[in-house]
Amino acid sequence: MLFRQLFEKNSSTYTYLIADKLSKQAVLIDPVIDETDGYIRLLNELGLTLKVAMDTHTHADHITALGKLRELTGCETYMGQQANSSCANDSFNDGSKIVVGKITLTALHTPGHTDDSYSFLLEHDGQKYLFTGDTLLIRGTGRTDFQNGSATDQYRSLFDKLLKFPEDTWVYPAHDYKGWMVSTIGEERENNPRLQVKDVIEYKNIMDNLNLPNPKMMDVAVPANRACGNLV
Amino acid sequence: MLFRQLFEKNSSTYTYLIADKLSKQAVLIDPVIDETDGYIRLLNELGLTLKVAMDTHTHADHITALGKLRELTGCETYMGQQANSSCANDSFNDGSKIVVGKITLTALHTPGHTDDSYSFLLEHDGQKYLFTGDTLLIRGTGRTDFQNGSATDQYRSLFDKLLKFPEDTWVYPAHDYKGWMVSTIGEERENNPRLQVKDVIEYKNIMDNLNLPNPKMMDVAVPANRACGNLV
Repeated sequence: MLFRQLFEKNSSTYTYLIADKLSKQAVLIDPVIDETDGYIRLLNELGLTLKVAMDTHTHADHITALGKLRELTGCETYMGQQANSSCANDSFNDGSKIVVGKITLTALHTPGHTDDSYSFLLEHDGQKYLFTGDTLLIRGTGRTDFQNGSATDQYRSLFDKLLKFPEDTWVYPAHDYKGWMVSTIGEERENNPRLQVKDVIEYKNIMDNLNLPNPKMMDVAVPANRACGNLV
Repeated sequence: MLFRQLFEKNSSTYTYLIADKLSKQAVLIDPVIDETDGYIRLLNELGLTLKVAMDTHTHADHITALGKLRELTGCETYMGQQANSSCANDSFNDGSKIVVGKITLTALHTPGHTDDSYSFLLEHDGQKYLFTGDTLLIRGTGRTDFQNGSATDQYRSLFDKLLKFPEDTWVYPAHDYKGWMVSTIGEERENNPRLQVKDVIEYKNIMDNLNLPNPKMMDVAVPANRACGNLV
């Protein structure tokens, strides 16, 4: 397996390139439109063929590269079913398998940040990797106050799904704003301040009182992302 | 072994935290002063004791956290011998071993970007990791036009030392400005445009004609770094 975490500075977004070294087939998770040239360069230099580009959810803070990558590489583009994306080639549900060469990613529906939020599970050489989107961040969780977000749903996604994974499971989020790149389920259980709550009521109380401003790009990014990154 | 790559956004610097999981002893390579609180937080959360903080070279683009970390944690601070740093606790030479619990890093003198530029070699579970500072970057090399830099020395450091490592050796540089985090020796041999030269004369010709402006922070950073980050 070839694995690369990539960073987009303006929105502090992590994009993940995962490829099967034998078949040279690759998948990109959460690619950002401004970085498209860099992805194409890296794919070419590593001799990889992009088979799939997909997003963990409809982003509000950056524009997806799904449409652009499909145009340039002919890859498939996938979104979660709840995204109702008419431009994506196909959608995944809870439990769907995304197969790229010998790589299999399992989609886990983890709503809360948005209703179309998914995490992806990858297992390789006995090690589990969770790509947690904006559901579980490093020492944080994604806000739940827009795009059909729900603190209650997020609590369930976190406590009933993600935190049930073994403590040494890698946590690879869609963002980090402090320059940390990876965590583990054990580390988050112990050190994530939002996960130290006693119940869903306490969690909802925290999330409902964050009083965050809307993301700067939200009005542009959400409709653009619904169109696979084609600016509207 | 516990291994974390960390990112400082203003100077696009990568800092590396490497720790022995058994003894809980840790080393930081190229820490940046503005991120000190984050390092202390992460060390505490992971239950680690910082034994050593060290720099690959005297940086011109950011201020080191060596002095600050020593003040806060009592760690040892190391620089290369050529740095002539009177404030560091000790210096390393070509071949020096830096031992932290069960972790051993070997210092490789790789002058060129500066005369005090070092790379560090780590071997773990049969995998080699090279922390290449500003000597070998991902698809680039560090400029050689200040602080006793030398394109000829850098050519030798690259071609006679770093590129001699096996192709699957991880390359972890001190910076990347395009959001790429890691490479391999094989990938750089093949795709790094600066390494496609036929000889040292061609390399020197490229490096001597880059015409780069001085780093914005150079006048502050170099004297401050000579004082282990204590601002002068």
